[in-house]
Amino acid sequence: MNLSEITSPTLLLNQDIAKRNIRRMADRCLSEGIKFRPHFKTHQSKAVGEWFREAGISSISVSSVKMAYYFQSAGWDDITIAFPYNIRENILISELSKRVKLTITIPGKESALRLASMARSDIDIMIKIDTGYNRSGIKWDSSDDVSDIIRILSGNSHLRVRGLLNHSGDTYKAVNQIDIKSIYKISLERLNWLKESLQVHDLIISVGDTPSASILPEYGKVDELRPGNFVFYDLMQYRLGACKFEDIAVAMACPVVDVRPGSGSLVIYGGGVHFSKDHISVDGKSVYGKVVLLNSDGWKEFVPQCYLSSLSQEHGIINMPEDYISLFKPGDLIGVIPVHSCLTADLAGGYLKTDGTPADHMNEKKYSIV
Amino acid sequence: MNLSEITSPTLLLNQDIAKRNIRRMADRCLSEGIKFRPHFKTHQSKAVGEWFREAGISSISVSSVKMAYYFQSAGWDDITIAFPYNIRENILISELSKRVKLTITIPGKESALRLASMARSDIDIMIKIDTGYNRSGIKWDSSDDVSDIIRILSGNSHLRVRGLLNHSGDTYKAVNQIDIKSIYKISLERLNWLKESLQVHDLIISVGDTPSASILPEYGKVDELRPGNFVFYDLMQYRLGACKFEDIAVAMACPVVDVRPGSGSLVIYGGGVHFSKDHISVDGKSVYGKVVLLNSDGWKEFVPQCYLSSLSQEHGIINMPEDYISLFKPGDLIGVIPVHSCLTADLAGGYLKTDGTPADHMNEKKYSIV
Repeated sequence: MNLSEITSPTLLLNQDIAKRNIRRMADRCLSEGIKFRPHFKTHQSKAVGEWFREAGISSISVSSVKMAYYFQSAGWDDITIAFPYNIRENILISELSKRVKLTITIPGKESALRLASMARSDIDIMIKIDTGYNRSGIKWDSSDDVSDIIRILSGNSHLRVRGLLNHSGDTYKAVNQIDIKSIYKISLERLNWLKESLQVHDLIISVGDTPSASILPEYGKVDELRPGNFVFYDLMQYRLGACKFEDIAVAMACPVVDVRPGSGSLVIYGGGVHFSKDHISVDGKSVYGKVVLLNSDGWKEFVPQCYLSSLSQEHGIINMPEDYISLFKPGDLIGVIPVHSCLTADLAGGYLKTDGTPADHMNEKKYSIV
Repeated sequence: MNLSEITSPTLLLNQDIAKRNIRRMADRCLSEGIKFRPHFKTHQSKAVGEWFREAGISSISVSSVKMAYYFQSAGWDDITIAFPYNIRENILISELSKRVKLTITIPGKESALRLASMARSDIDIMIKIDTGYNRSGIKWDSSDDVSDIIRILSGNSHLRVRGLLNHSGDTYKAVNQIDIKSIYKISLERLNWLKESLQVHDLIISVGDTPSASILPEYGKVDELRPGNFVFYDLMQYRLGACKFEDIAVAMACPVVDVRPGSGSLVIYGGGVHFSKDHISVDGKSVYGKVVLLNSDGWKEFVPQCYLSSLSQEHGIINMPEDYISLFKPGDLIGVIPVHSCLTADLAGGYLKTDGTPADHMNEKKYSIV
């Protein structure tokens, strides 16, 4: 990778790290006899998708109909849209179901009724269960509601209920690994309780957050795992203990545009339109990313006490100890590990791999200067 | 506008409102004898740019070199890049300076030295002054440093210092209009003090935030105004008192995908990748947007007590009183006034005008399903 060719904020991707993350998770699922259906919403890249294929993966999760089409066009033919069924995209969903083995997610009775009245081609269904995150889906203890939904869907012979799906997004807000394990175990107990109380044969259980998938020593009574973020990890996952520093596969390279001795800060080209605005709180301070030094192979360890402290549209402010400031000048390039790699990649719309070649992203922009 | 054709999160733009916002600001500048150099980073749209041209505007501000090229390609030929000079884009800047009357922003001595050594074509300069926001630029009371920069730049005959530029972004964090006026007046006093102490002829003073530009009854001793957000406004500006509800020109139309009676919430297709993650705090709660009802002409007033309370990648959670919940069902479309229209438009990459026709955005994505 030739750093001198980088002129504006650029998301660097170390493919060796990403491939290792993929292999590790694939191997774990294999050894526990669990189907691995990775979520592709983090990378949104056909190139990165190929690394999953090399690891033996043939079934994926996505978070939108558009993303499903993107990966269908790259040859993926077993796709779960792990987002509540959007009735307004029914025509697109119907067309897609003719091209791939499609699974969609039903979060409630009304959606089930609408789907049952409209489906004219084969679609598999996962029922979205709320095991405590309280974002979306049927409450885990409402087994009558789930039975109703299964009954409604069974009225259309194109529809087949495959199982129960949850997302324990509350693990992202956990304060430690004990919390994460506890959330996971409770969720899984609730899903299994529901499954048993339904007395329907062959329902699978599918769960999916990266903190649990990374931390739990055993996955327990689960059939399918759908983590996504683990392919890159990020500062949030590092803070949760879901990864080590050397597992983080992306860093943003940002030009320094202003150095401000006396104020303990420097300004980078890299703002809310590059990083998004997710942050973590460290010692009462908002942290939008942490600084790493870049080299032609990628990046090294965190630079202590150097972090991205605020973001406006295109500006980022790096706070650092006063005696570091003089080490930087406008025109330098600084590396930042993002807080949330999914949103940062979504904004970047492409990657520069640390081997110097690009990788695609679904959000590549039409307009470029050249 | 045919709401039934909207299938996924879509940024609606009411052009009558936007044009009225443009005319109002243009008229005010005209009546006060101030040059209006609107910031185009909010809309990033050639179509919206034309509405400024109709209002007599010929000079603009942008926040990146890429954005400067985008508008140059639409015939704009007097462009200020109101972002600290990025040395790494020097070749692009140099090429651009041959095509348009280009002004760039110099935030410090090192940048001035680098520019002075490299410029081979005519470039105008604004010196970035920090009047208290503490983001970027030379401190307003460091007149010796500013003199040094002027001297350095005068060593290259291609460079001409036009004036002093600040951005009082701290008005966005003001708690009331008195605060905003006070920040504006202090900033302007400091810029004028600096200008006088420099004893350089013909330096202009350029300021630019939307809250001040909207609220101040008189702009005072200033030569150029560069607000951007006022073209659309948003929830943040509404909360600051910088606009009325009827001045807000954009709303996001989002499909309802899950309705959760008993939890006081419903789930929309519309998340952090559509709204960004800026939020305001209302009564201790984080608010990411407020709900409006949509009709074929656009949207009506706020629905009381209904707001976007959290965002994940593609999901948005709307909180509302329990007795409203039954009014909605999956497949409905809900309107949301975004907290920060600049970032929301940046993510949307395009607009649907309420007259039913589209408008461009620099970030239009290459990939679409159809």
